Amino acid sequence: MDFFQNVDWSSILKDTGIILLKLIGIIAAFLIVKAIGRRVIKKMFQRLQARHSISTGRALTLQSLSLNVLSYTLIFIFIVMVFEVFGYNATALLAGAGVVGLAIGFGAQGLVSDVVTGFFLLLEKQIDVEDYVTIAGFEGIVEQVGLRTTQIRGFDGTLHYLPNRQIINVSNHSRGNMRALVDIGISYDDDIDQTIAILQEVCERIAAEDVSIVDGPNVLGVQALGASDIIIRIIAKTENGQQSAVERKLRKTIKEQLEANRIEVPFPHQVSIEKKSN
Amino acid sequence: MDFFQNVDWSSILKDTGIILLKLIGIIAAFLIVKAIGRRVIKKMFQRLQARHSISTGRALTLQSLSLNVLSYTLIFIFIVMVFEVFGYNATALLAGAGVVGLAIGFGAQGLVSDVVTGFFLLLEKQIDVEDYVTIAGFEGIVEQVGLRTTQIRGFDGTLHYLPNRQIINVSNHSRGNMRALVDIGISYDDDIDQTIAILQEVCERIAAEDVSIVDGPNVLGVQALGASDIIIRIIAKTENGQQSAVERKLRKTIKEQLEANRIEVPFPHQVSIEKKSN
Amino acid sequence: MDFFQNVDWSSILKDTGIILLKLIGIIAAFLIVKAIGRRVIKKMFQRLQARHSISTGRALTLQSLSLNVLSYTLIFIFIVMVFEVFGYNATALLAGAGVVGLAIGFGAQGLVSDVVTGFFLLLEKQIDVEDYVTIAGFEGIVEQVGLRTTQIRGFDGTLHYLPNRQIINVSNHSRGNMRALVDIGISYDDDIDQTIAILQEVCERIAAEDVSIVDGPNVLGVQALGASDIIIRIIAKTENGQQSAVERKLRKTIKEQLEANRIEVPFPHQVSIEKKSN
Amino acid sequence: MDFFQNVDWSSILKDTGIILLKLIGIIAAFLIVKAIGRRVIKKMFQRLQARHSISTGRALTLQSLSLNVLSYTLIFIFIVMVFEVFGYNATALLAGAGVVGLAIGFGAQGLVSDVVTGFFLLLEKQIDVEDYVTIAGFEGIVEQVGLRTTQIRGFDGTLHYLPNRQIINVSNHSRGNMRALVDIGISYDDDIDQTIAILQEVCERIAAEDVSIVDGPNVLGVQALGASDIIIRIIAKTENGQQSAVERKLRKTIKEQLEANRIEVPFPHQVSIEKKSN
Amino acid sequence: MDFFQNVDWSSILKDTGIILLKLIGIIAAFLIVKAIGRRVIKKMFQRLQARHSISTGRALTLQSLSLNVLSYTLIFIFIVMVFEVFGYNATALLAGAGVVGLAIGFGAQGLVSDVVTGFFLLLEKQIDVEDYVTIAGFEGIVEQVGLRTTQIRGFDGTLHYLPNRQIINVSNHSRGNMRALVDIGISYDDDIDQTIAILQEVCERIAAEDVSIVDGPNVLGVQALGASDIIIRIIAKTENGQQSAVERKLRKTIKEQLEANRIEVPFPHQVSIEKKSN
Amino acid sequence: MDFFQNVDWSSILKDTGIILLKLIGIIAAFLIVKAIGRRVIKKMFQRLQARHSISTGRALTLQSLSLNVLSYTLIFIFIVMVFEVFGYNATALLAGAGVVGLAIGFGAQGLVSDVVTGFFLLLEKQIDVEDYVTIAGFEGIVEQVGLRTTQIRGFDGTLHYLPNRQIINVSNHSRGNMRALVDIGISYDDDIDQTIAILQEVCERIAAEDVSIVDGPNVLGVQALGASDIIIRIIAKTENGQQSAVERKLRKTIKEQLEANRIEVPFPHQVSIEKKSN
Amino acid sequence: MDFFQNVDWSSILKDTGIILLKLIGIIAAFLIVKAIGRRVIKKMFQRLQARHSISTGRALTLQSLSLNVLSYTLIFIFIVMVFEVFGYNATALLAGAGVVGLAIGFGAQGLVSDVVTGFFLLLEKQIDVEDYVTIAGFEGIVEQVGLRTTQIRGFDGTLHYLPNRQIINVSNHSRGNMRALVDIGISYDDDIDQTIAILQEVCERIAAEDVSIVDGPNVLGVQALGASDIIIRIIAKTENGQQSAVERKLRKTIKEQLEANRIEVPFPHQVSIEKKSN
Repeated sequence: MDFFQNVDWSSILKDTGIILLKLIGIIAAFLIVKAIGRRVIKKMFQRLQARHSISTGRALTLQSLSLNVLSYTLIFIFIVMVFEVFGYNATALLAGAGVVGLAIGFGAQGLVSDVVTGFFLLLEKQIDVEDYVTIAGFEGIVEQVGLRTTQIRGFDGTLHYLPNRQIINVSNHSRGNMRALVDIGISYDDDIDQTIAILQEVCERIAAEDVSIVDGPNVLGVQALGASDIIIRIIAKTENGQQSAVERKLRKTIKEQLEANRIEVPFPHQVSIEKKSN
Repeated sequence: MDFFQNVDWSSILKDTGIILLKLIGIIAAFLIVKAIGRRVIKKMFQRLQARHSISTGRALTLQSLSLNVLSYTLIFIFIVMVFEVFGYNATALLAGAGVVGLAIGFGAQGLVSDVVTGFFLLLEKQIDVEDYVTIAGFEGIVEQVGLRTTQIRGFDGTLHYLPNRQIINVSNHSRGNMRALVDIGISYDDDIDQTIAILQEVCERIAAEDVSIVDGPNVLGVQALGASDIIIRIIAKTENGQQSAVERKLRKTIKEQLEANRIEVPFPHQVSIEKKSN
Repeated sequence: MDFFQNVDWSSILKDTGIILLKLIGIIAAFLIVKAIGRRVIKKMFQRLQARHSISTGRALTLQSLSLNVLSYTLIFIFIVMVFEVFGYNATALLAGAGVVGLAIGFGAQGLVSDVVTGFFLLLEKQIDVEDYVTIAGFEGIVEQVGLRTTQIRGFDGTLHYLPNRQIINVSNHSRGNMRALVDIGISYDDDIDQTIAILQEVCERIAAEDVSIVDGPNVLGVQALGASDIIIRIIAKTENGQQSAVERKLRKTIKEQLEANRIEVPFPHQVSIEKKSN
Repeated sequence: MDFFQNVDWSSILKDTGIILLKLIGIIAAFLIVKAIGRRVIKKMFQRLQARHSISTGRALTLQSLSLNVLSYTLIFIFIVMVFEVFGYNATALLAGAGVVGLAIGFGAQGLVSDVVTGFFLLLEKQIDVEDYVTIAGFEGIVEQVGLRTTQIRGFDGTLHYLPNRQIINVSNHSRGNMRALVDIGISYDDDIDQTIAILQEVCERIAAEDVSIVDGPNVLGVQALGASDIIIRIIAKTENGQQSAVERKLRKTIKEQLEANRIEVPFPHQVSIEKKSN
Repeated sequence: MDFFQNVDWSSILKDTGIILLKLIGIIAAFLIVKAIGRRVIKKMFQRLQARHSISTGRALTLQSLSLNVLSYTLIFIFIVMVFEVFGYNATALLAGAGVVGLAIGFGAQGLVSDVVTGFFLLLEKQIDVEDYVTIAGFEGIVEQVGLRTTQIRGFDGTLHYLPNRQIINVSNHSRGNMRALVDIGISYDDDIDQTIAILQEVCERIAAEDVSIVDGPNVLGVQALGASDIIIRIIAKTENGQQSAVERKLRKTIKEQLEANRIEVPFPHQVSIEKKSN
Repeated sequence: MDFFQNVDWSSILKDTGIILLKLIGIIAAFLIVKAIGRRVIKKMFQRLQARHSISTGRALTLQSLSLNVLSYTLIFIFIVMVFEVFGYNATALLAGAGVVGLAIGFGAQGLVSDVVTGFFLLLEKQIDVEDYVTIAGFEGIVEQVGLRTTQIRGFDGTLHYLPNRQIINVSNHSRGNMRALVDIGISYDDDIDQTIAILQEVCERIAAEDVSIVDGPNVLGVQALGASDIIIRIIAKTENGQQSAVERKLRKTIKEQLEANRIEVPFPHQVSIEKKSN
Repeated sequence: MDFFQNVDWSSILKDTGIILLKLIGIIAAFLIVKAIGRRVIKKMFQRLQARHSISTGRALTLQSLSLNVLSYTLIFIFIVMVFEVFGYNATALLAGAGVVGLAIGFGAQGLVSDVVTGFFLLLEKQIDVEDYVTIAGFEGIVEQVGLRTTQIRGFDGTLHYLPNRQIINVSNHSRGNMRALVDIGISYDDDIDQTIAILQEVCERIAAEDVSIVDGPNVLGVQALGASDIIIRIIAKTENGQQSAVERKLRKTIKEQLEANRIEVPFPHQVSIEKKSN
C-alpha cells in the first residue's frame, strides 16, 4: 500500500499527457504531409503529361511509383518517431535496419539504378516501342520499355533483355530522314568527267522514279584515290526506313548503266616484276 | 543490516516495472510486426505468381528467402533492443557487429549481388531452363537457374557456371521466330536480273516444301558491289531453332540451281600487270 | 482539481515563450537567407551573361534551376529546425530521409551528374546547336543541348541521345578554319622534282580559283618512301566546312594533270621469282 | 580519518554490485550465445554436407573457419562490453581499432574477398581437383582448391596460382559428354550429294568402331559457301575427354576416303587477269 | 504580475552576457584567422611566382581562387558557430547542408577535380599556349589553358575541349631538340658497305647545308634483315619543329643519290613455284 | 582565504583517486594485452614456419612486421584513453588524426595493399627467387621478393619492378615438368601413315638419347587439315627448363629425317586461274 | 549591485582555473609531442639514408615534407582542442572543415596519391635520372624525378610528364647486362649443320673482337620451322646499352658471311597451281 502511495501519479499523468500530445502532433503532421505530397505529385504528373505529351498509361505507371515511394518513406519515418515518443531508443532500430538495408542496398544498387533510369525512359521520348535503335552494342527493334528492363528484338530474331542502367547512349534510327550512301570504284583509265555525268543521269532518273527519296541522290565527286580504283561517292536523303532499298536500287542501276557505257568496276591490280630463279 | 535498509527498494521496484513493461512492449511489437510481415510477403507472392505466371516451385523458393530475411532482421533488432532495455550500451554490440559485418560484407558484396539478381531472374521470365542464350559472352543452353549461379551448357559440351551478378544483358535466342540469311556472290559478268529470277524461283520452291518457314525466303537485291563479286542477299523467317537447317538447305539448293544455269560463285580476282625485271 | 493546481504553469509559459522566440528567429533567418540567396544568384547570372555573352534564354534556364535548388535546400533545413524546436528528435527524421535519399541517390548519381555537366554546357560555349562535333565516339550535328541530354544527329540520319555526363572530351569541328590534306603516290621511276613542279602549279591554279581556300595549298615534299610508291603530301587551309570539297577538287585536278604529264599513280608492285616445281 | 568517514561507502558498494551483476550478465550471455552459435553452425554443416554431398574433409575445413569467425567476433564484443562496464569509454577503443582496421581492411579487401569466394568454392561442386577448366583466361587441370588460392596446371606445364576472387565465370570441361566437330572443305566442282554420301558412310563406320562416341557422327550439310571451297560440317557427341581423339580419327579417315574417291580438299583459288605493262 | 516576478532575471542576464562574450570571441577569431589566412596565401603566391617564374596574370588567377575558397570556408564555419551560440542545434543545419551538398558533390566531383588539376596546370609549366602536345590521345597545338578546361587545336583544324581532369600524362613535343629518323630498305643483292658509304656522304652534305640540324645525321647500320630488303637506319637531332622538314629532305636526297648509284629500294619479293593443275 | 576554504577538497581528492585508479587500470591492461599479443604472434609464426616450411629469414621479417603493427595500434589506443581519463575530449584528437589519416590513407591505399599482398607472398611459396614466372604480363626470372615490390629480370635484361598489389594471377613456369610441343606440316600428297611411322621412329630415338625427357615424345595424329598442309602434332614431357632444348632437337631431327624420306614441309599453295585481259 | 553580489565568483574562478590548467596541459603536450616527433623523423631519415644510400639532397626533401605534415597535423589538433577548452563546440568547426576538406579532397585525391608515390620513388632506387625506362607505355630517358611528377624524354625528343601515381610497373633497362638477339632465316634446301657451323664461327670472331660482349654470342639451334624458311636463333649478353650495336654488327657480319658461303635468306615462297579459265 505504501508503495502505491509513493508513486508520483501526477508526473506519470504529465508524462502520459505529453506522449499523447506528441502522438497527435506526429499523426497530424503525417496526414498533412501525405496529403500535400500526393497532391504535389499528381499535379506534377499532370503538368509533365501536358508538356511532354506522354501517354496516359505511362503517366499513371510513373505516378503510382512516385506515390509508393512517398508512402513507404513516410511510414518509415512515422514508425521511427512513434518508437521514440514511447521512449525506446530508435537508434537501435535505425542502425539495425540500416545495416541490413546497406548490405542489401549494395547488392541492389543496380536495381535502383535500373528503376531511376527506367523512370526517365518512360517519361521522355528517347525510345518508343517499334523504334529501330542501337543501345549498348545491341541493334534491333524496341519491343517493350519497362521500369526495370527494356526488350530489343535483334534482326536475327534474338530477344535482348537490357537492364535500364545499361541504356546510356541511345542511337535511334527512327527519328527523321536517313541517308543512302553508295561508293563506286572506277578504273584509273576511265574518264572521271564522263563517269560523273553518267552517274548524275542515273541519280536524276531514280530521284524522279522513287517517291521515298527526299533529297538527291547527288554525286559528291572523287572521294579517294585508291590502290586500284578511283572512288566516287553518291549520297541521297530518304524517308526513314527506305535507305537500304534506295541503296540497293542505286547499286543495281549504276552497275547496269556503267556496263552499258563500258565502264567497269576494276578488280585489285598488282604490278608483277618477273625474275628468273638463280 | 543498515546497508540493506538504505537500499531504495521503491526505486528498484519502479525500475524493474519499467523494464518489464518495455520488454512486454518490445515482444508485442516484435510478434505483431513479424505476423504482419509474413502475411504481407505471402500475399505479395500470391499476387506475383498470378501476374507473372511463374511456377509454384519458383514462387516458394523466393517466398522462403524473403521470410528468412525478414526473420533475421527482426531477431537482430529484437536482440539489440533487449540489450538496451537491460541498460547495456548496445552501441558497443552494434559497432562490434558492424565492423566485422562490414569487413565480411565488402568481401561478400558479390554474393549479395548474386542473390538479388538471382531473385529477379527466378521471378521474371528472361531465361528458362532449355533456352538457347548468350550471356556475358557465353553461348549455350541454360541448364539451371539458381539463387547464386546459373549454369549454361556450351555447344562444345563445356558447362559454364555464371554467378548471377554477371547476368546483365541477356540475349535469348529461344523467343519467337528467327531469321535465316544467305548471301550469294555472283560474277560481275553475270546478269543481275536473270540471277535474281533464278534465286526467287528457288526461294518459292523451298517456301512451299519446308513447313518450318514462317515468312519468305525473299531476294532483297544487290547488297554490295564487292571486290570480285556482286553480293545478293536472301532472307527468310523460320520457326525458332530451324534457321540453321533452312540456311543449309537454301545454300545447297541455290548452289545446285545456279550451277545448272551456268552461273558460278566467282573466286577472288586480281589484275596482274607483268613487267620484265631490269 | 488538485492535479491542475500542481501543474507548473509558469514553466509551461516560459517554455512556450522560448519556443515562440525560436520560431520567430528561424522564420526571420529563413526569409533573410532566401532573399539574400535569390539576389546573389540573380546578380551572379547577370554578370555571367555579360561575361560569357550567353543567350538570355540559356541564362534564365540556369537561373531558375539555381533558385529551385536554393528553395528546396532552405525548405528542408527549415522543416528540420521547426521539428527540433517542438522537441521532436529530428535525427529520426533526418536518418529516415537520409537512408531513403542515399538509396535513391546512389541510383540517381548519374542524373545529378548529368544536370551538373549540363549546367556548364549551357553556360559555356563548347557546343552550340548546328555545330559539327565528335563526342564520346559519336559524330554529327548538334540538334539540342538540354540539362539532362544532348542530341546529336549522325550523318547517316541516326539521332544519338547522349546523357550529359558522357560529354567529357568535346571535339568541335565548327571552330575556325580546317585543313584539306591530299596524299599522292608516284612511281619510283618518276622524277620527284618534275612531279612537285606540276603539283605546285595545280595548287596555285586552284588557290586562285577557289575563294574558300584561306591558305595554300602547298606541296610539303616526300612524306614517305612506300613499298611501291613515293608519297607526296599537299595541304591547304580552308574555310570551315569546305575542306572536303577542296580535297575532292584537288584530287580530281591532280589526277588529270598528272595523267596529262604521263605520271601515273602506281599499283602495288611485287617481284616474282619463278621456280619450277620439283 | 575525516576523509574516510566522508566516503559514501554505500554508493560504492551499490556501484560495485551493479558492475558485478552486469559482468555476470555479460559472461552468461557470452557463453550462451557461443554455445548456441556453435551448435547452429555444426547443424548447418551437417545439413549442407548431406544436401550437397561434399566430402567430410571439405566440410570440416569450412566448419572450423565458421567457428573461428564466430569466436573472434564474440571475444571482440565481450572485451568492448567489459571495458564499458568498468566505466572506460569504449568509443576510444573502438575508434582506434576501427581506424587501424579500416586502413588494413582497405588493403586486405582482396584477402577477405578471396576467403568468401573460397568458402563457396569448397562448398559447391563447380570445380574439383582433376577437372579440366577455363577460368579467367587460364586453361588447365585443377591441382588444388584452397581457401585463398586455386592452382591450375596449364597444359604446357606452367602452374597458375589464382586468388579465389578471380574465379568468377567458371567453364568446366569435365562435366558430361563433349562435342567433336570437323569442318571439311570441298571444291565447287565436286558433287555435294556424292560427297555427303561418302562422309556419312565414314561416319557410320567410325560410330560402329569407336565405343567412346555417344551420339553421331552426323553430316549436318553445307555450312558455308567459302571463297574457294564449300564447307561441310560433321559433329559427334563423345565421352568426356575423348573429343580430340575422335576428331583426329575422323580427320584422318575422311581425308583418306575422299582421296580414294578422287575428291580433294581445294587450295585457295584466285582468278588472275593478265595485262601487259604499258 | 506574479509571473514576471518569478522570472529569473539574473540568470537571463548572465546567459545573455555569455552569448555576447562568445559572439565577440567568434567574430574576433574570424577576423584574425581571415587576415592571417589572406596574408599567408599572398606570401605563398609571391614565393611561388618567384620560384616557378610564372606570369603575374596566372599568379593572380590562382591567388584569387585561393582567397575565395578561404572566404567561403570561414563564412560557413562562422554561420554554423553563430547558430550554435544562439542555442539552435546546428547539427540539423549541417546535416541538411551536408546531404544536399553530398548529392551535388557526387555529381560535381568531376568539376572539383578539374579545378584542382587546372590549379597545378597554371602553376607549373607542363603546357604553355602554342605548345605542340599529345594529351589523352588528342594531338595538336594548345590554344588556351583554363581553370576548368584546356583547348587543343588539332592539325585538321578541329578544336578539342579537354576537362582538366583528363590531363594526366602530358607529352610535350615543344621542349628541346627533336629526332629525325629515316629507314631505307636496300636489296639483298646490294653491297652494304658501299650503300652505307653513299648514305654517310649524303648525311654529311645535308648536315653542312641545313642549319636546323643540331647533331648528325648518322647512319646507324643494319637495323633489320627484312622479308625482301635490308633496313638501314639514319637518325639526326634537329631544332624543335624542324624534324619533319629534315626527314623530307633526307628522303628526297637519299632516293636521288641511291638512284644515281643504281641502288634501288626493292619491291616485296616472292618465290613462285609453278605446278601444273592435275 | 575564504575561497580556499570553500574548495571541495574531498571531491578533488576523490576525482584524483579515480583518475589514478583508471590510469593504473589502463597501464595494466596495456601491458597485459601487449604481452599476450606478442606471445600469440610469435607462436603463430612458429606454427606457420613449421607448417609452410618457410625460411627463418622470411618468418622473422613477417613476425617483426606483425609486432610493429601491434605496438603502434596499442600505443595509439593508449594515448587516446589517457587523454580521456584526464578529461580532454579525445574526439577532437581522434577526428583530427582521422581526417589527416584518411586523406593520406586514400593516397597510400596502394601502399597498404602492397604490404598486405607482400606479407602473403613471403608467407606462401607461390614465387621464389630464381623462379621463371609470368606476372601481370611481365615474363622473366624473379630476382627479389620484398614487402612492397617484387623484382623480375626480363629475358632481354630489363629489370621490372612490380608493386606487390599488381601480383594477382601468378603463372610459375618452374613448378614441375614442362611440355615440349612440335607441329609438323606435311603435303596433302604424302602418305599420313608412313609419315607418322617415320615421326614415331624419330621420337623413340630421341627419347632413348635424351635423359631430360620424362615422358614421350608421342605422335598425337592429324591435328588439323590446313589450307596447304596436314598438321601432325608431337608432344613430350621434359624436366623443368629443358622444354626449349628438346623442341629444338626434335625440329632439327624431324626435318632431316623427313628430308631423307623425301617428305617435304609444303609451302603455301594457291590455284591460279588465268584469264586474258579484255 | 544586487546582481553583482549574486554572481557566483568562486565558481567562475574555479572554471577559469580549470581552463588555464587545461590550456597549460595542452600546450605542454603539443610541445613535447612536436619535439619527439621531429626527433623521431630525423633519426628515421638518418637510418634510411644509411640503409638505402640515397643522396643527402633526396633525404632532405623527404625529411622536410615529413616535418611539414607533422606540423600541420599538430597545429590542426591544437586549434580544435583550444576551441573546446573555451567551450565552443568544436564539432561545428570540425564538420565545416571536414565537408570542405572532403569536397576538395575527392578532387585532390590524385594529388595526394602522386606525393605518396613520389615519396617512395625518391626514397628507393627504382629510377634514377639518366636511366632508360619504360613506364605506363612511355619509353625514354628519365630527366627528373619530383614529388608530384616525373619527366621522361622520349627518343623522338618529346618530353613526357607523368604524375607519379601513374608510375606503377617500372621497367628499367639500365640495370645490368642486356641481351642481343638475332634470328636468321635460311632456306629449307640449305644444310642446317653447315649453316650452324658458319654462324658459330662468326659468333666466335665477334666475341673476340668486341669488348662490350659479356657472354656469347651462341647459336641456340632451330627456333622454328617457318612457312618459307628455317629460323635459327643467336643470343649474346652485352654490357648495358651496347645491345643494339652488337645486334647491328651481328646482322651485317652474318649476312656477308652467309653470302660468301652461298647461303641466302629466302624470300616468301608460294606454290602456284595454274589452271586455264573456263
